[in-house]
Amino acid sequence: MFEYPVRVYIEDTDAGGIVYYANYLKFFERARSEWLRLLGFTQQQLQTEGVRFVVSDLSIKYSQSAKLDDQVFLTLELISQSKASLTLNQCAYLKSDEKEDKLLTNAEIKLVCIDDAGKPRTIPDQLKKQILLDSQELP
Amino acid sequence: MFEYPVRVYIEDTDAGGIVYYANYLKFFERARSEWLRLLGFTQQQLQTEGVRFVVSDLSIKYSQSAKLDDQVFLTLELISQSKASLTLNQCAYLKSDEKEDKLLTNAEIKLVCIDDAGKPRTIPDQLKKQILLDSQELP
Amino acid sequence: MFEYPVRVYIEDTDAGGIVYYANYLKFFERARSEWLRLLGFTQQQLQTEGVRFVVSDLSIKYSQSAKLDDQVFLTLELISQSKASLTLNQCAYLKSDEKEDKLLTNAEIKLVCIDDAGKPRTIPDQLKKQILLDSQELP
Amino acid sequence: MFEYPVRVYIEDTDAGGIVYYANYLKFFERARSEWLRLLGFTQQQLQTEGVRFVVSDLSIKYSQSAKLDDQVFLTLELISQSKASLTLNQCAYLKSDEKEDKLLTNAEIKLVCIDDAGKPRTIPDQLKKQILLDSQELP
Repeated sequence: MFEYPVRVYIEDTDAGGIVYYANYLKFFERARSEWLRLLGFTQQQLQTEGVRFVVSDLSIKYSQSAKLDDQVFLTLELISQSKASLTLNQCAYLKSDEKEDKLLTNAEIKLVCIDDAGKPRTIPDQLKKQILLDSQELP
Repeated sequence: MFEYPVRVYIEDTDAGGIVYYANYLKFFERARSEWLRLLGFTQQQLQTEGVRFVVSDLSIKYSQSAKLDDQVFLTLELISQSKASLTLNQCAYLKSDEKEDKLLTNAEIKLVCIDDAGKPRTIPDQLKKQILLDSQELP
Repeated sequence: MFEYPVRVYIEDTDAGGIVYYANYLKFFERARSEWLRLLGFTQQQLQTEGVRFVVSDLSIKYSQSAKLDDQVFLTLELISQSKASLTLNQCAYLKSDEKEDKLLTNAEIKLVCIDDAGKPRTIPDQLKKQILLDSQELP
Repeated sequence: MFEYPVRVYIEDTDAGGIVYYANYLKFFERARSEWLRLLGFTQQQLQTEGVRFVVSDLSIKYSQSAKLDDQVFLTLELISQSKASLTLNQCAYLKSDEKEDKLLTNAEIKLVCIDDAGKPRTIPDQLKKQILLDSQELP
């Protein structure tokens, strides 16, 4: 499964000493960007072709909190795909040598592919193919 | 119903020219802070009493986008309440003189009341009473 | 002198319990946006006319820190103006009923007026006039 | 010289299509955190020993802009050191295979070492030694 690490810096924390709840959405988008990059697509390039992805639905469960200096691992898994949308499962967790991995947050995120006018459009074939290939590679 | 306006500044926007999706969570928390303030409670003060609220579950639907200079109105409504948690419905929308209000995002947010150790604790009576009074004031 | 209040929310703080140092730059830009709005100009509208302001130089002194729930007052004063640039002095401070106002940060900020291609351009006459009028109104 | 790469994600950009000016301060702090980590110190650990660094003075020159997907390189160089403070030069730039590196921003940043009460305190000997060793390693 795709996995991407991010480090927690002071900018990510709040006065409660933990990662601010909105910042997990930043982390998740970093992971999605890196996943697209791995599949051979950058958002710059997609945008020049009139392709952008926007989040239309998101549900997230916050279980535990990351702290300053933590290394947070982000996973991403395709749940379903339609002509103009992708639904992903994205998790953030901490790894541990001694204990079990600690799940921080778990989100289901629906992305809609839009054109320059903000209207839904079909996901480009090339990208769709890569996404399917990527999810079939898994055992 | 409680309503709080925020202005969209450059900091809130992204390269897509719209408010970045994570920033609605900031707007919602501003509204919650102002709602608590209206009920007579500040987060500083609650924290000195060992009371903090953290989001445990959140589901949000993004319908339309706010842009630079927009004035976004935030509403907040109590859906349910337990010993140690509150569930709120929070919306962000744009007002219009000519047309109908435009719903931007709509979220259901569950807040858990925690103590200094991060464990769930009962919501202080005084606060619970004010919250109930506030929601009963509505017709 | 132009003055604009902002409230400190959890999003603005960091694990040190104070406003994160980069966020004063957000506060300063909010104040500049509101100052322009007061002079009759929105950034949306300026952008449609191919006018944008970008910060080219900034020096800031951090004296004291704002905390959660604080109301921070932002001031803005024109120091100098050229064909294509403005230099402003911007302060953030806390007011107090009993004691003297508490200066938090003090910045000198140079803004350059650029066109759609990112090249420096003359500040539109109408805007220049309003800015001068505004600074002459002061005793 | 110490160098640290960061990727530009959508969260970092604004409606102007470029990295928002305050976000370079986030990038610079990430670089400082990684530099400390390289010297053997994490901010978590320093804080448990009652040691924190806060920015007291900062001057920054914005020359060019980074865009979505850019890889920004951050450098960090010790300029001077006193009992309780460090002054650093920090740059952000883009590398290029064909052309010269492109300087984005250049900042001089003074950090003050403070204790739990927020008062200046001497930088711990161990840390001071590592910082000096690190800057002497340069030719």
